Amino acid sequence: MAVSEFGLINRYFKQQAVHNSTTQLGIGDDCALLSIPEGFELVVTTDTMVENVHFLAGANPEWLGHKLLAVNLSDLASMGAKPLSVLLALALPTVDEDWLRGFAQGFLSLAQYHAVDLIGGDTTAGALTLTVQALGLVPAGLAMKRSTAKIGDLICMTGCLGDAGLGLKIAQGKYGCADSDAALNRLHRPEPQIAVGLVLREFATACIDISDGLVADLGHITEQSGVGACLDWERLPLSSAVKQYITATGDWQMPLCAGDDYELCFTINPADLKSLPATCTQIGVIDQGDGVRITQSGTTQRLTKQGYEHFS
Amino acid sequence: MAVSEFGLINRYFKQQAVHNSTTQLGIGDDCALLSIPEGFELVVTTDTMVENVHFLAGANPEWLGHKLLAVNLSDLASMGAKPLSVLLALALPTVDEDWLRGFAQGFLSLAQYHAVDLIGGDTTAGALTLTVQALGLVPAGLAMKRSTAKIGDLICMTGCLGDAGLGLKIAQGKYGCADSDAALNRLHRPEPQIAVGLVLREFATACIDISDGLVADLGHITEQSGVGACLDWERLPLSSAVKQYITATGDWQMPLCAGDDYELCFTINPADLKSLPATCTQIGVIDQGDGVRITQSGTTQRLTKQGYEHFS
Repeated sequence: MAVSEFGLINRYFKQQAVHNSTTQLGIGDDCALLSIPEGFELVVTTDTMVENVHFLAGANPEWLGHKLLAVNLSDLASMGAKPLSVLLALALPTVDEDWLRGFAQGFLSLAQYHAVDLIGGDTTAGALTLTVQALGLVPAGLAMKRSTAKIGDLICMTGCLGDAGLGLKIAQGKYGCADSDAALNRLHRPEPQIAVGLVLREFATACIDISDGLVADLGHITEQSGVGACLDWERLPLSSAVKQYITATGDWQMPLCAGDDYELCFTINPADLKSLPATCTQIGVIDQGDGVRITQSGTTQRLTKQGYEHFS
Repeated sequence: MAVSEFGLINRYFKQQAVHNSTTQLGIGDDCALLSIPEGFELVVTTDTMVENVHFLAGANPEWLGHKLLAVNLSDLASMGAKPLSVLLALALPTVDEDWLRGFAQGFLSLAQYHAVDLIGGDTTAGALTLTVQALGLVPAGLAMKRSTAKIGDLICMTGCLGDAGLGLKIAQGKYGCADSDAALNRLHRPEPQIAVGLVLREFATACIDISDGLVADLGHITEQSGVGACLDWERLPLSSAVKQYITATGDWQMPLCAGDDYELCFTINPADLKSLPATCTQIGVIDQGDGVRITQSGTTQRLTKQGYEHFS
């Protein structure tokens, strides 16, 4: 990749305006400079997406740009952070202007929506590998963690479960249904739950985002908090499309084990149930049992499937 | 890559201790948490290294780990920042325990030396692609930039020029000499100039690190500052090995255009020459001319070669 091509690439990512007041110096120097206001902690995360691992060759570049940023902002949401700025590291096999235009469009639209500044990055030749580092702010002491759930807490989640997993089945040609667009949209264009994260941080006792599947991710909370979790099948928020999928296939574990929903799973003290936002549902209880279990028609069982694994 | 393999990988990067007091929460949650002290600005950068672009297949993993961190810390040094913490995103084609052990050793040794905490990361399957995001601190207003050099300033640099470029010629089998180890060491194990950056930020008017070659990197300062630069060939700090290379090959432009030196190139007001650290050399003057030129035996010429380009 010649030096002149880097200039070309950078053109697609030049934002017209800086969106937030923390950015003192953005793209164009060796580093970016941020001023962090008093009383806040900095929240930092990174996530990578790789062709043929996280997405298939030929994937829509606009969706990729959106999803790459969304999965990183989702990590900030799970801590209750407000996103500030991101760095973007791209390894690209070729300089494809159509691809770059679409990718930048998807990435920067979501960035603008959340007032996130792209403050720097790195572009190199290489197999298609997309990495974001995201920075956010949370008032000191208010960040939600995985390790602080208490026995007796209620397990809750935002939104619906399993639609992205259904979208993956449809994208893979393993399942078809009438309203496939909604499920595909959930797979390709997840919405990070930033706004609800800012509300939950006031009272949630623990939180994680559902990226690898509810059972796997809730398992991180139980493991790191030293508690157990019992889910109630009847309470799980399932869309009619997911319910139809289960009826048609018998695969009731899909919504529990599929990844990519990017909803938040969190725990609260029962006294705070009245504060639960309307878009959230209580789905279980933290107990002193072992790991994650589910109660279905009066029978409690341990789930056999694990969360998302990369090509093994 | 199966979930269990991620646990294996993470084991190699678990640090025994947190080295600095800003780290409130390190590896193991959705995000890391940092407390930023009052009166400081946060300095943020990212750099990626890709197999067959930045290093050859089969490269010594311990050197790779060192160099990946070093090139990121070098960006912090060029702003005058003290490094705090890093995130590490790895795409790995296979899980090779010997490789991981070596890589982690090189990476964590340098991290420990600079009291840098590894606070998080992401590991995926994929073509070997190594990305670091580095965070540092600088007192508000003291960060050195590329855009603030003034006409009449003196151009200076740390250390010697061209030894990493000589190392590359040796590694490629294009040149041989008796003391090749020193040059290879400069190529494979660059030392980020953190300590001198902390001194220079008190008076340098602009600064950049020499990653793509002196002419290319000084060119960023002249372009972004709207000034010209004239280098003095007689003043360039060249090791005896580089001088011998030039005598043997006639390739006098190599030290000016080769990358990977990771020294700092900076500008100062002439009144501050007395404050110049002993390891630094004045190599030219900022003027109102066009771009970067060099004076050699009374003749001034523009350099024809550009800086480092990825495999074109």
